[in-house]
Amino acid sequence: MRFMNRLVGILFAVIATNGVGFAQQQDSIFLRKIYDEALSRGKAYEDLRSLCKDVGARLSGSSQAEMAVEWGKARLEAYGFDTVYLQEIKVPHWERGTKESAWIKSNKELIPVKILALGGSVSTQGTRKAELVVFKNLDALRAANKSQVAGKIVFINQPMDEKMINTFKAYGACYAIRGEGAIEAAKLGAVGVVIRSLGLPSDDHPHTGSMHYDEKVAKIPAAAISTEDANRIQKMVDQKLPIEFIFEMDCRNYPDATSYNVIAEITGSEKPNEIITFGGHLDSWDAGEGAHDDGAGIVHCMEALRILKVLNYKPKHTLRVVFFMNEENGNRGGMSYATWTKARGETQIAALESDRGGFVPRGFACDGSDQQVRFLQSLEKHFKPYELHVFEKGYGGVDIGPLKSEFPSIPLFGFVPDSQRYFDFHHAESDVFEAVNKRELELGCAAISSMIYLLDLYF
Amino acid sequence: MRFMNRLVGILFAVIATNGVGFAQQQDSIFLRKIYDEALSRGKAYEDLRSLCKDVGARLSGSSQAEMAVEWGKARLEAYGFDTVYLQEIKVPHWERGTKESAWIKSNKELIPVKILALGGSVSTQGTRKAELVVFKNLDALRAANKSQVAGKIVFINQPMDEKMINTFKAYGACYAIRGEGAIEAAKLGAVGVVIRSLGLPSDDHPHTGSMHYDEKVAKIPAAAISTEDANRIQKMVDQKLPIEFIFEMDCRNYPDATSYNVIAEITGSEKPNEIITFGGHLDSWDAGEGAHDDGAGIVHCMEALRILKVLNYKPKHTLRVVFFMNEENGNRGGMSYATWTKARGETQIAALESDRGGFVPRGFACDGSDQQVRFLQSLEKHFKPYELHVFEKGYGGVDIGPLKSEFPSIPLFGFVPDSQRYFDFHHAESDVFEAVNKRELELGCAAISSMIYLLDLYF
Repeated sequence: MRFMNRLVGILFAVIATNGVGFAQQQDSIFLRKIYDEALSRGKAYEDLRSLCKDVGARLSGSSQAEMAVEWGKARLEAYGFDTVYLQEIKVPHWERGTKESAWIKSNKELIPVKILALGGSVSTQGTRKAELVVFKNLDALRAANKSQVAGKIVFINQPMDEKMINTFKAYGACYAIRGEGAIEAAKLGAVGVVIRSLGLPSDDHPHTGSMHYDEKVAKIPAAAISTEDANRIQKMVDQKLPIEFIFEMDCRNYPDATSYNVIAEITGSEKPNEIITFGGHLDSWDAGEGAHDDGAGIVHCMEALRILKVLNYKPKHTLRVVFFMNEENGNRGGMSYATWTKARGETQIAALESDRGGFVPRGFACDGSDQQVRFLQSLEKHFKPYELHVFEKGYGGVDIGPLKSEFPSIPLFGFVPDSQRYFDFHHAESDVFEAVNKRELELGCAAISSMIYLLDLYF
Repeated sequence: MRFMNRLVGILFAVIATNGVGFAQQQDSIFLRKIYDEALSRGKAYEDLRSLCKDVGARLSGSSQAEMAVEWGKARLEAYGFDTVYLQEIKVPHWERGTKESAWIKSNKELIPVKILALGGSVSTQGTRKAELVVFKNLDALRAANKSQVAGKIVFINQPMDEKMINTFKAYGACYAIRGEGAIEAAKLGAVGVVIRSLGLPSDDHPHTGSMHYDEKVAKIPAAAISTEDANRIQKMVDQKLPIEFIFEMDCRNYPDATSYNVIAEITGSEKPNEIITFGGHLDSWDAGEGAHDDGAGIVHCMEALRILKVLNYKPKHTLRVVFFMNEENGNRGGMSYATWTKARGETQIAALESDRGGFVPRGFACDGSDQQVRFLQSLEKHFKPYELHVFEKGYGGVDIGPLKSEFPSIPLFGFVPDSQRYFDFHHAESDVFEAVNKRELELGCAAISSMIYLLDLYF
């Protein structure tokens, strides 16, 4: 009897092992098909070209953003997914306007400076002109006296730390000068704020991005200048030269506009009400073409679903691609989506976002429990042939973030491409289609498609 | 007594473990200093700009190659290494000449085609014109009859396989059409050979490279056309259109020229006669600026040694950077170096090459024994903070390859950057300074500098 038990046990182990081996072999074959489709018959690169060139930059509330919604819906419909529809939302509507000029004046020399208003900034109401006072970071500004700052224009010249290997960490460390600079400067009576662009290279164009006001503090105009101009001004400051800053911007806020998240699905064959959401954001800043940020994420996810469809994969759960609107200046798309799906009685079992550019894939991060992170790590073996090696606890994404409030146990996965070149292009005129490499983009599509397949099967 | 033995054993283990921990901590601190120097005060990017813009393309035997030798010696001297000197060698001298034109003619339509003679090709001796016969690869050509080929121009249209994740493997699979195409075509009586460029993207410029003749077979002119032109011709062939190919090239071989490997050293403090050689190749093809191939390798290694010097590192062994001449069409630099160092009675304990472009580092490969590969793998932990993850058996490099004949037990290490974009630029007009990203280049310098430090300490 004991012998028989052991024999049964051994037989069971053999069958189970072969079962695991067989499943893993099937997965390996399927992932290879996904990569072949992405690399040989991929649509992502031409889709991105179309989004960048036919639509272009697409800030929330703009005509271009409206066109991007139509573009997205039409592309998704053309790929023949089970359902394609729009989720209506309200978005902030800020426009840069037509006037944007600046100069520095020192020793009677007048030097033009390229500026970009920060997103959400008030206008200068004509020309604004004042002495420039420089701070090395937000803490230095906070530590200043009113007498040093009142009536002046504050310049915060904090460079991103090029020594940090992960460039997103360097960005995170500087983020507050853009987000909070206007509030802190206005508290001390400044009449304007200028920041060094959050960009890593020494370049000659500003990088814009979102900023905030505090309703209890005066709203002062805020702009970014290029890292090269920032270095030039710093040199003048180091030489104790008096500097006047002169700028004009007629940007302004409009009433909230109607816009949409764009959604496509392959319906789940076993559990249609259990959703795996994956996407990027359709809006972009108004400089460049929003190619890496986040045109890449849009076509990554559209292509990931297209590949599963052409390979005739029948998912157990509903696979839903969402092109989120308004990540850049409000996250209304992400917030609305979370409450909307909850209200519909859907179950969100996992979500994934691509919003770190179209660079060569390194892996995936998981914002989830230890067990969920271990699950992610268990998938690493599938990606070994494709040179992915980052499978760790980390950040998911801005758009999918609000799902955590509605579905506290949901794991959020962030696609992790290589980060080295991202801040060459981020929120700047350099973020154009030509900055994206075809193979790197396609490998991202294949990695995400593979991950969605594995999540559907095993999570 | 037995107790005392155990106590001594435990004490010894504690001391040894702390020793290992202390050494590892010191290494960790030192590697961080290397990376800081490369990323904050690096010289590699401006050195590469100078090599690409002040010297430019530099094929063996050309004036530009001579200038590159002077450039290299001057830069190395400026960095103040212990010794800087030249090793005289003889190199092949082939020149493209001034005429390089081609057309395809079909149904009376004449379409101009961009060509690049393959390096080493004979001239067309005026205009060469013949019917074009297409083969999908070298095996198909070898299987053909003389009657199909005699008097015609052979076109070999084998695309690199974009499905291969490591692009060097896709390159290796096509290499023979360039290297052997002229021999195989001439055996069957062809009067010329044209190949599809060994490049991954669909682009409009040819990629050149080396080719061979067989002294027993007629030498016929050989050229590359762009992947776009190759696709266009294939379409015409598929439509059964008759195609005539017309081309003129006045490239030719000259007598061997005198040239040099450029060498710099920090002398070993304990074992000066034991050498760690690391380098790239100074020559390049004559299209583009030789930025990724192999300007990047040159500045990688120069910068790696510069960093160790400014950090005041005193190596045990002699650290020797070699700028090899003539990797592209003869490897005379590599071969001469191996016999020369052997004849001087030096011991080469390890060698490293960077010749895969200036892209973001992935790791290192080791052409060596299992034990040597395990040694390489033992270093992986040091590179974890810097996102390197490839530590495996693999290829070293063309220039350091001949050292194996003279020093059979030497391990050869190849620096492994990401391979995805390499064949966008390889041997083509697109391989210019602007195609190299500053941070990616600098991270390569730091990785190589760190590896040389660890080899000196632990190998």
